[in-house]
Amino acid sequence: MKNYLEHFKLPTLYKKTSQKTGLPPGTLIYTGTRKQEPVQIELIDYDEKQLEEKKLDSVQQILEYQKTDSNSWINLDGIHNVEFIEHIGQQFQLHPLVLEDIVHVGQRPKMEDYDTYLFIVLKMLQYDEQSRTVETEQVSMILGPHYLMTFQERPGDVFESVRQRIRSTKGRIRKMGCDYLGYALIDAIIDEYFKILEAFGERIESLEELLLNDTDRDILHEIHHIKRELTLLRKSVWPLREMIAGLDRTETGIMKKSTKIYLRDLYDHTIQIMDTLESFRDVSSGLLDLHMSMVSNRMNNVMKVLTIIATIFIPLGFIAGVFGMNFEHMPELKLPWAYPFGFWAVIAGIVIGMFVFFKRKKWL
Amino acid sequence: MKNYLEHFKLPTLYKKTSQKTGLPPGTLIYTGTRKQEPVQIELIDYDEKQLEEKKLDSVQQILEYQKTDSNSWINLDGIHNVEFIEHIGQQFQLHPLVLEDIVHVGQRPKMEDYDTYLFIVLKMLQYDEQSRTVETEQVSMILGPHYLMTFQERPGDVFESVRQRIRSTKGRIRKMGCDYLGYALIDAIIDEYFKILEAFGERIESLEELLLNDTDRDILHEIHHIKRELTLLRKSVWPLREMIAGLDRTETGIMKKSTKIYLRDLYDHTIQIMDTLESFRDVSSGLLDLHMSMVSNRMNNVMKVLTIIATIFIPLGFIAGVFGMNFEHMPELKLPWAYPFGFWAVIAGIVIGMFVFFKRKKWL
Amino acid sequence: MKNYLEHFKLPTLYKKTSQKTGLPPGTLIYTGTRKQEPVQIELIDYDEKQLEEKKLDSVQQILEYQKTDSNSWINLDGIHNVEFIEHIGQQFQLHPLVLEDIVHVGQRPKMEDYDTYLFIVLKMLQYDEQSRTVETEQVSMILGPHYLMTFQERPGDVFESVRQRIRSTKGRIRKMGCDYLGYALIDAIIDEYFKILEAFGERIESLEELLLNDTDRDILHEIHHIKRELTLLRKSVWPLREMIAGLDRTETGIMKKSTKIYLRDLYDHTIQIMDTLESFRDVSSGLLDLHMSMVSNRMNNVMKVLTIIATIFIPLGFIAGVFGMNFEHMPELKLPWAYPFGFWAVIAGIVIGMFVFFKRKKWL
Amino acid sequence: MKNYLEHFKLPTLYKKTSQKTGLPPGTLIYTGTRKQEPVQIELIDYDEKQLEEKKLDSVQQILEYQKTDSNSWINLDGIHNVEFIEHIGQQFQLHPLVLEDIVHVGQRPKMEDYDTYLFIVLKMLQYDEQSRTVETEQVSMILGPHYLMTFQERPGDVFESVRQRIRSTKGRIRKMGCDYLGYALIDAIIDEYFKILEAFGERIESLEELLLNDTDRDILHEIHHIKRELTLLRKSVWPLREMIAGLDRTETGIMKKSTKIYLRDLYDHTIQIMDTLESFRDVSSGLLDLHMSMVSNRMNNVMKVLTIIATIFIPLGFIAGVFGMNFEHMPELKLPWAYPFGFWAVIAGIVIGMFVFFKRKKWL
Amino acid sequence: MKNYLEHFKLPTLYKKTSQKTGLPPGTLIYTGTRKQEPVQIELIDYDEKQLEEKKLDSVQQILEYQKTDSNSWINLDGIHNVEFIEHIGQQFQLHPLVLEDIVHVGQRPKMEDYDTYLFIVLKMLQYDEQSRTVETEQVSMILGPHYLMTFQERPGDVFESVRQRIRSTKGRIRKMGCDYLGYALIDAIIDEYFKILEAFGERIESLEELLLNDTDRDILHEIHHIKRELTLLRKSVWPLREMIAGLDRTETGIMKKSTKIYLRDLYDHTIQIMDTLESFRDVSSGLLDLHMSMVSNRMNNVMKVLTIIATIFIPLGFIAGVFGMNFEHMPELKLPWAYPFGFWAVIAGIVIGMFVFFKRKKWL
Repeated sequence: MKNYLEHFKLPTLYKKTSQKTGLPPGTLIYTGTRKQEPVQIELIDYDEKQLEEKKLDSVQQILEYQKTDSNSWINLDGIHNVEFIEHIGQQFQLHPLVLEDIVHVGQRPKMEDYDTYLFIVLKMLQYDEQSRTVETEQVSMILGPHYLMTFQERPGDVFESVRQRIRSTKGRIRKMGCDYLGYALIDAIIDEYFKILEAFGERIESLEELLLNDTDRDILHEIHHIKRELTLLRKSVWPLREMIAGLDRTETGIMKKSTKIYLRDLYDHTIQIMDTLESFRDVSSGLLDLHMSMVSNRMNNVMKVLTIIATIFIPLGFIAGVFGMNFEHMPELKLPWAYPFGFWAVIAGIVIGMFVFFKRKKWL
Repeated sequence: MKNYLEHFKLPTLYKKTSQKTGLPPGTLIYTGTRKQEPVQIELIDYDEKQLEEKKLDSVQQILEYQKTDSNSWINLDGIHNVEFIEHIGQQFQLHPLVLEDIVHVGQRPKMEDYDTYLFIVLKMLQYDEQSRTVETEQVSMILGPHYLMTFQERPGDVFESVRQRIRSTKGRIRKMGCDYLGYALIDAIIDEYFKILEAFGERIESLEELLLNDTDRDILHEIHHIKRELTLLRKSVWPLREMIAGLDRTETGIMKKSTKIYLRDLYDHTIQIMDTLESFRDVSSGLLDLHMSMVSNRMNNVMKVLTIIATIFIPLGFIAGVFGMNFEHMPELKLPWAYPFGFWAVIAGIVIGMFVFFKRKKWL
Repeated sequence: MKNYLEHFKLPTLYKKTSQKTGLPPGTLIYTGTRKQEPVQIELIDYDEKQLEEKKLDSVQQILEYQKTDSNSWINLDGIHNVEFIEHIGQQFQLHPLVLEDIVHVGQRPKMEDYDTYLFIVLKMLQYDEQSRTVETEQVSMILGPHYLMTFQERPGDVFESVRQRIRSTKGRIRKMGCDYLGYALIDAIIDEYFKILEAFGERIESLEELLLNDTDRDILHEIHHIKRELTLLRKSVWPLREMIAGLDRTETGIMKKSTKIYLRDLYDHTIQIMDTLESFRDVSSGLLDLHMSMVSNRMNNVMKVLTIIATIFIPLGFIAGVFGMNFEHMPELKLPWAYPFGFWAVIAGIVIGMFVFFKRKKWL
Repeated sequence: MKNYLEHFKLPTLYKKTSQKTGLPPGTLIYTGTRKQEPVQIELIDYDEKQLEEKKLDSVQQILEYQKTDSNSWINLDGIHNVEFIEHIGQQFQLHPLVLEDIVHVGQRPKMEDYDTYLFIVLKMLQYDEQSRTVETEQVSMILGPHYLMTFQERPGDVFESVRQRIRSTKGRIRKMGCDYLGYALIDAIIDEYFKILEAFGERIESLEELLLNDTDRDILHEIHHIKRELTLLRKSVWPLREMIAGLDRTETGIMKKSTKIYLRDLYDHTIQIMDTLESFRDVSSGLLDLHMSMVSNRMNNVMKVLTIIATIFIPLGFIAGVFGMNFEHMPELKLPWAYPFGFWAVIAGIVIGMFVFFKRKKWL
Repeated sequence: MKNYLEHFKLPTLYKKTSQKTGLPPGTLIYTGTRKQEPVQIELIDYDEKQLEEKKLDSVQQILEYQKTDSNSWINLDGIHNVEFIEHIGQQFQLHPLVLEDIVHVGQRPKMEDYDTYLFIVLKMLQYDEQSRTVETEQVSMILGPHYLMTFQERPGDVFESVRQRIRSTKGRIRKMGCDYLGYALIDAIIDEYFKILEAFGERIESLEELLLNDTDRDILHEIHHIKRELTLLRKSVWPLREMIAGLDRTETGIMKKSTKIYLRDLYDHTIQIMDTLESFRDVSSGLLDLHMSMVSNRMNNVMKVLTIIATIFIPLGFIAGVFGMNFEHMPELKLPWAYPFGFWAVIAGIVIGMFVFFKRKKWL
């Protein structure tokens, strides 16, 4: 249980950023874990009637498809090839800051309106149920009138269902433009967030059960981990709301009115995620309080046992000690009934008195 | 006491949502606990002069009533029949997202304005005083100019009083339109919330009394439960305010001005509920603090008893031990007055000294 | 000390409201503690030149005075006579929701603008210094152009000083209209709040002194009570700000510009009350922290005493025990100097060593 | 250390206000500590070329200076002479509420725009480094086109430096109008606040050092005091921001544009003070946490010592006790090597075993 | 580890400010640590085609460069020479408050728009990885149409990379105006903040690891330090957001539209820094909670060991004591099997019973 969801780690918050200190803005430096794999470009070009799917390998090819009136979804896996990205940027006349943000992993989710295209960055989280880990990847989108470019760090994404819907002839997605495709991709990413919330919910529940069963198992670290991960997850989710609201507000025609109704739905989802995150934070803080109270409760019980035993037997020990003294003149030692009746009666009296005392104190 | 209000559970926060991951938006998937009962449709068609109440069983019938100028309240129990809902959607020309939200249990309360109709979702909580449980159910409303459709998960609701008022000829409700009916239903739902708050209030009060009576009973879990449930309840209530404010702001003629005055009243109620929830959270956090303080207070008292007894008797035990030693040359053992006067005087002196010490320390 | 200000109780937050569940909005149900006393109606009719004061007993009489140009203050004590209130409502053409709110004790303070009259609800708190209790009562006001109706739950209020000012010929109040009278009454109510804050302040101060004097008296419940009462008091005060701001914003001529300057003053007072409440909450939370720290400090001291005594005497006891053993071959027992010099020297050495140890640990 | 800054006390928050309950608004009642000293009126009349400084003693004289085009700063020390204030009010045609606020000590800092003059109230705090006390005094200002009246509770203020600047011929203040003078006075008051923050900072730092040196001295009360005083100080500072923003927004010509640039500077200062106050609150809360953690750490150490000693010696004591028993048939007592080798070997074994155990538990 | 990042200290928050109390606004007083080094002025004058870099030593020279159309970056190291600053102010017609703020170390980051120039103040933090200290320095900027003046407290800054970019002929910076240069400098300063966050992140992580390894090392002070430093760092960062938003809003042509796109990027960075700071605060508060819980957990374990040992052996000790008594009539002492079978059987019985008891209590 210890290691899952561990992928959310503090270092990802700052490690990547300082490599760039001192460089001019707009410098393209890939800040993720560099890989040597070649860049892969997939194209899906479709409209209501036709569908073309193929792998591209030159910027020139992309440009051709971009010009057509059909919807072109160009997906790049691998943003470590900085020269390639730069080349695309020149051809598509993208702002240098956009290119910088694409390759600079560690962006805060945001959307920016560059009149002729919208630039969108967000985090794609992928939850693998078997290994119980979360993979995090930065996804950037360039949404133009008839094309959508997506940039991913590596192959593998949560977009498979969207691809299936495009391939099927009858889905709504075939009838709508690229803005709807962009919405569908963001929706797919956010749907995955719900899965991760579920995993969190289950962990919190199982911790709660452990606590209620009063097992002694140390769940402190677990609670701490969950709280920390929620803090980090929250950082990815909060800016989403603003981003989607921003998309809704754009006045360039790129985001059409018919699609904006769907954005409203996305907006509701992000608020729901945020609400759930806040509840989780509340509940896990509550768990910590509960745990600490239970620890002090248990300590209280331990102390009571000690006190009862010590309070009864230490005085008795003293009395036994008295009659073990070697004074020559201790007349009581000589009395025949002193031991069986005198001594034991005193002992019994003390024990009974103590019992009454403890009863009154409600310790027994 | 342990099990009531237990129905508020963390799982309801996330369980339902992930079944949908990867499906196109607008896909109708019922996310509640599937039931095989047939869908029931009740119609109440009324205006100031006439009243008709009957069970319908086809979408066609609904359409007929929808067209009349009289107010038609069509109530569906059972949203698991997705095909049926879809059919209604087509006939009434509802947006796909609306249909999706109707069957997708787990919505955040909200209202959406689709020009020709208003779409409202909220949670109906039903408190059963006997079993002390709360049933939660999603209620969706489609409010058009002359009709109101309500969608419930299962039979049984809090609307009986509204039905009675419609049946009686003289109530205000017969003179007003469907917008007033919509208000009346929301009002009935919110009135039920007050009942639940009452139940919470009573539980908090009884916990408080338990604490004040200083019984040792473990109320930690109780407090934790209440706090958690309040967190969840809050999630259902907060969006209500926004929803009602939204209804008040709509500019389509569906929500008439004469009804909006009543919305203001609803608005006040939701704020009152929120205020009360916040107070409850405050008070129950206070209870936890109080409990923890009392535990450490009690521990303090336990420790004092232990310390007093141990501090008095351990030294005495040592002294008795000394005179129990078998050294040959211990002249004091031979003195006739050593035991009755010497030994006991020392003992008494120590005990009295300790008493004075403890008195000064204010431990006695 | 325990019982004063006890009147602020959780039940008042929810008890009253659920009696109404399921009734149509606008149903008049008195939700306070029903009393059989007859309704009393006092009239004060005045303008700059004349003053008339008398008891009325029919709605008809009220209507007559309402029509005159002079200011008519009609005060009703007793709102349990629902039929009477309903009758007034019909004559004055009040909105059904207004009537409902008047008799429905447990309203959140608010003001509502019905064009021809303003409707104001707030809580009148009366602090009785002798019994140290706070009486709470709902006061509703209907403020029209030339009349002000006030509805109280029972006889006895904080308006006596206002009545005196009206009776005296030279006060400003005689020259101003009914809106100023309304202001004067709200001002009188809020002035009383300051008295209650004072009482809280004194209690907090005396608790603080108790804590500083380090008495062992259990003040936990006191602090808990104060915090809870502040939570509840806050609930009554927060909406006041909004209410007064609302009065200031009204654009019907009922609230004249010359009176609005005075509202600004009221507004300042409510903010001051809120500030003070927040400070009190802060300080009383601080008291709880302080108390808990002191408890653990004291426990620490108790433990030190126990540890010092036990650590010194348990080893000594063991040594005495060793020489009390009955082994035949214990040559040291035979040595004549063993007891006086050997044994006691060891004892002294151990005690001195322990002292040094404790000194270094800063326990002594 | 205990008594300084003690002047900030809870009573000042509410004591003064209730004397007024029930009086008509605008009633002049001095709510400070009444003094019998005569009112002192100082006049400084200046423009770029001339300067006149003298003591006045009649309202008539004030009026004369008010009419001139030169800047007249009229400073009143002593607001307990209510009749005098009332007389001024009539002559200057001040609103009754203004007069009430001037004599009613305990105002929240605010500014009000009465078209022909601005009314400003704030708290003047004076820090006396020697006695380490803070004197608090209410200062009211009436800022007209060519005059500034200041009302203080008693002689002695922080304005001496401003007076010096007026006296010197070359300062900017001589060239500017009364609005600049008003700004200069507020600036002088706020500068004093920084001094007080410094004193707080020093106290917090010295407490921190005490904590770090791990002395046992009880600093709980100190921390509590600081937190309480910060709470109260905050109450005086927060409204300042609003007040200065209000001055900046006034559109009457009284506050000229050239002076408003300076207000911006004042605004920055108040925000800086607020920021610092918040940091102090944070840090002192942190100190409390630190202290409580250290107390439980120390308790932990005390308990370990006790446990180690008791765990070693109680079993040993039992063994010694066994061989001190008087059974006739205890053959081991007869063995010659039993005591020196058998007994002491067992003892040594137990002690060594315990040591290993404690080492493993990392208690040693 | 103790001393690094120590440079963030409370005193810097208030020490400097009170030296100025009572002086007229606009008085130039350097409030930093006075140094005797001469002021150094560096000029970089450049446009797309030419570049000139030299040291200046008179205000006159600066003025000449200011007039040219090329971009002139004038950098002053050393603001203690107040007369020099004043001279510049007169020549450049800067507002007295600007000059005051330049020399008055301890400003809150802000930007002010004086129509013909923008005034910007912020904190330059320099992190030295070797000594692990942070140097803090105030940087002021005067941004005019064709010139940028920067004022630093001492030589050494984070601008070296910007200088390099200017020197290289092909960078974007050569083609843009002074507003872009200003942006580049602020960007360089903020980039350095990320480095410091990294250092914080590493410290927090290493503390976390220490905690997880459950070492007993006292990390309380470390956590307290980090929390305090984060509080202070936050004070420097929060106003940045407002400052950058202010720059973006300026409507004088100084900040050109093409540069404002870059400001948006800066804005994102500051929000990212703030988010990270908040996460760090959350996590370090979590660490404190975790530590306190672990301390009480450990105490619990200590207490259990003590209780087990004491509870077993104190009763046994009493029994041994009983048989060590010297009563003459203790028949059990005479029985031959009493010691080996009777006594030891009782002892064994008690020990076994205790074990069962502890097992049930889950203490073993």
